[in-house]
Amino acid sequence: MPKQVLHIIKIGGNIINDKEKLSSFLSDFSQVKGHKILVHGGGNKATEIANDLGLKPKMIGGRRITDEANLEVVTMVYAGLLNKNITARLQHHNCNAIGLTGADANCIMAHKRIVKDVDYGFAGDVDKVNSDAIRLFLENKITPVFCAITHDKKGQLLNTNADTITSEIAKALSTDYEVELVYCFEKNGVLEDVNYENSVIEYINKETYENLKQKNIIAKGMLPKLKNCFEALENGVKKVIIGNPEVIYNRNQKYTTLTL
Amino acid sequence: MPKQVLHIIKIGGNIINDKEKLSSFLSDFSQVKGHKILVHGGGNKATEIANDLGLKPKMIGGRRITDEANLEVVTMVYAGLLNKNITARLQHHNCNAIGLTGADANCIMAHKRIVKDVDYGFAGDVDKVNSDAIRLFLENKITPVFCAITHDKKGQLLNTNADTITSEIAKALSTDYEVELVYCFEKNGVLEDVNYENSVIEYINKETYENLKQKNIIAKGMLPKLKNCFEALENGVKKVIIGNPEVIYNRNQKYTTLTL
Repeated sequence: MPKQVLHIIKIGGNIINDKEKLSSFLSDFSQVKGHKILVHGGGNKATEIANDLGLKPKMIGGRRITDEANLEVVTMVYAGLLNKNITARLQHHNCNAIGLTGADANCIMAHKRIVKDVDYGFAGDVDKVNSDAIRLFLENKITPVFCAITHDKKGQLLNTNADTITSEIAKALSTDYEVELVYCFEKNGVLEDVNYENSVIEYINKETYENLKQKNIIAKGMLPKLKNCFEALENGVKKVIIGNPEVIYNRNQKYTTLTL
Repeated sequence: MPKQVLHIIKIGGNIINDKEKLSSFLSDFSQVKGHKILVHGGGNKATEIANDLGLKPKMIGGRRITDEANLEVVTMVYAGLLNKNITARLQHHNCNAIGLTGADANCIMAHKRIVKDVDYGFAGDVDKVNSDAIRLFLENKITPVFCAITHDKKGQLLNTNADTITSEIAKALSTDYEVELVYCFEKNGVLEDVNYENSVIEYINKETYENLKQKNIIAKGMLPKLKNCFEALENGVKKVIIGNPEVIYNRNQKYTTLTL
């Protein structure tokens, strides 16, 4: 029997921070047919709340350190405010959503990032995705909505990169489903020239990817994202799409498709 | 076939606010055999965060009004901070917990309290508990952990009384399970004299309840709780226990049992 398709869609701060974009995305997402999972990033609300509470962001080498107070804030904002509002709004669109962290039903186990030069605090690196639990939801027509919080099975919540969570879930579920991964972001796709929205590179495979890299065509910020995508493809994910949020509903516009 | 037993246990602020009590409760709860559900109240963390954010509590006639800003705070604290930490800590004790609001898998639908004299803001009165969803978790050995947030199926989250949520879940699930409801609080049970911990009334039925009420023996704050309990018993709940948190694990001590 052929595997069923599973759509895994990731949205980041650019959608979370924009009321109208989020509304229109949630309406579009609810209309995606078949099995689907949403993963959302944090946006700037956590920073606002941290500021309002008088917490100073701790950065080392451009990376945010999650100390205990900041872990409380991201747990409140990601797992509480954002995740539950998204869930309630999807319910309104008749999408039977369930808001989850990695701790819920033990969906995603991680460990606190090992301290080498820098102690990133309560930052989690994913160890294992519990695909049985996620499959139970999907097979009962429940749509998981993950925020970027995991746990270490020792009672500790951990702040975890949302792109990583997305690709780890995608890899784990590709044993059971034909996984199509969609990264929604602010551009129409991977661009040949970041200044021209219309310069979308429509297809990239492993070979052309190496080519684009050598020619320095891909924007620096895009490189880790693409590395992550190809790693997912090499681990069973069928297809990765990178485009603006409207791509999930209206595929007439241009977007980037990655395959091996 | 006889129905299976389902333990529904509610904890309030007195446990939530006390690190040690909460730790020992979670360890005890994880050892309760068979199907179980935890419902937790809010404690004083939401008030602390609201104060830290510069929000002033709005009260009318001794009751808190949930305006938009306060709804954000309780959503962050109840559904985020408290609910997810409890879930992660139960996972540590090998209890496969899942943290839920009423919006998740559409478990509990409510409506914004109708404005008569007072507009309580985003306070929810429960309309319906989705027992199919909750049963799916229980039958798959997943333990639901509910915080006191529901939704109206129109995208709006609502702040809801935790005692009410507990009894509504209990009533709805009594069709499928033999439900035993446990209200954990700071006293050893319903007391004949609030000043004497040892004056626990061990059994109360409908008849003796009326008697105790007439003789003004029951503390005023206890009356709405008991009314709620008898209503649950009249709607299919088998037994209600009121006692301190240790009662769920160590039943040698005195506590109050309510039956019809």
